Amino acid sequence: MQKKILEIYNIIKKLRKECPADKARDEKSLIKDIGGELNEVAMALGAKDSENLSEELGDLLFTVLFLTNLCEEKYNFNIENVLNKLNNKMIFRHPHVFENPRQVTIEEAEKIWKQKKQEEKEFNIIH
Amino acid sequence: MQKKILEIYNIIKKLRKECPADKARDEKSLIKDIGGELNEVAMALGAKDSENLSEELGDLLFTVLFLTNLCEEKYNFNIENVLNKLNNKMIFRHPHVFENPRQVTIEEAEKIWKQKKQEEKEFNIIH
Repeated sequence: MQKKILEIYNIIKKLRKECPADKARDEKSLIKDIGGELNEVAMALGAKDSENLSEELGDLLFTVLFLTNLCEEKYNFNIENVLNKLNNKMIFRHPHVFENPRQVTIEEAEKIWKQKKQEEKEFNIIH
Repeated sequence: MQKKILEIYNIIKKLRKECPADKARDEKSLIKDIGGELNEVAMALGAKDSENLSEELGDLLFTVLFLTNLCEEKYNFNIENVLNKLNNKMIFRHPHVFENPRQVTIEEAEKIWKQKKQEEKEFNIIH
């Protein structure tokens, strides 16, 4: 999948440079579009239409990546950092899965998540 | 970025197997969570808070990938096909960028998009 994701991200970059309709998309229109795509995913799920669901999930992912690329440019961060931080955060908030694997209940897992989130805020741990 | 995306997808797979709170997430709760994350992205954009925006975009992407992985399992498709189809569709719907690069207006680009979408439906072109 990683090769395909990179291809799609490169398609997005090209469209944002070379297609006037894509150039015109901005944060506001993209937030609206993502909401629309999410609604289409929900409808495909409701209809249990696997073929359509797979297409709508692709459209949702595309629109989120499109917004991410626009934000990279306009708000001075890059997707590598976004992904890195996300990755580190998810590992940090699940010590029962990664750091010290052990069986926990749902309630314990939720409590750990909240504790770790609080620690992040206090100590600015995740980079 | 492609390496990081693969890492995150592998984290998701592990969480869905080994964390009881993540195991309990289903289509309905994930659709709701994606809506929540989208709202947080919109708020970070409104506040022009670049640091927070980068985190919220990561969370949004994570939740969409989480739903995709759950759907792969439950609805019998795989993410490779989702991405492949998406890729082919985006190239097919932008001949003015890929097949035969030329300057077009926004109106022309939108007209081409609609025409191509119609062709896809009629001839079942995109796989």
